[in-house]
Amino acid sequence: MKAIILFGHGARDSRWREPFDRLAQLWHEQHQDTPVELAFLEMMQPSLEEAVNSLSTKGVTQITVVPVFFGQGGHLRNDFPVLLEACQKQFPKIQLSAMPAVGEDLAVLQAIVDFGARAL
Amino acid sequence: MKAIILFGHGARDSRWREPFDRLAQLWHEQHQDTPVELAFLEMMQPSLEEAVNSLSTKGVTQITVVPVFFGQGGHLRNDFPVLLEACQKQFPKIQLSAMPAVGEDLAVLQAIVDFGARAL
Repeated sequence: MKAIILFGHGARDSRWREPFDRLAQLWHEQHQDTPVELAFLEMMQPSLEEAVNSLSTKGVTQITVVPVFFGQGGHLRNDFPVLLEACQKQFPKIQLSAMPAVGEDLAVLQAIVDFGARAL
Repeated sequence: MKAIILFGHGARDSRWREPFDRLAQLWHEQHQDTPVELAFLEMMQPSLEEAVNSLSTKGVTQITVVPVFFGQGGHLRNDFPVLLEACQKQFPKIQLSAMPAVGEDLAVLQAIVDFGARAL
């Protein structure tokens, strides 16, 4: 069974995660056969490792991690691959892969442009 | 004349800003009558103040700032209003306003869900 992890940066203010909770809820409503978990790089729980562990107990065998970041800077180019590799070693029976950051997607960028255009 | 500022966090790695440059380019192609500038909270240029100043020299009288952030944590709830108010005081002839973070927009979240669904 496949699953998705929506991976965000995390922040001190718990309200920061509200859009991530909405994202997971939207995913759950629209893709009920594919479990979804949130995971955060820092300052919020669960970690990537905890999210992979949680999915592994549900019989998941393939996980795609979607980095919910705009830009691909040090966090995604340096920290994330190390984390992902560590998770892969810890859960050898699960096939882990990652997508580019959502900010690389033209449809996401277009939605942001359209949002801004409502101010005109 | 109205204008838009797309306001992001900023990062040490210059490649982080690539999606922001793409956003500004998309905006420019689709809304040529409404000037657009990027601005960053930290680690990247221009600052919000510099972007407002640049637009003011083009005859802009109204600026809407679009926070290109997912979550609304300390940066948007504490730092950003202070910055915006300081800019308003410095440029009293320009009407400055701000939208919620783009992560509050359902269409942006849906585009992220659809992006993740391509992994299925």
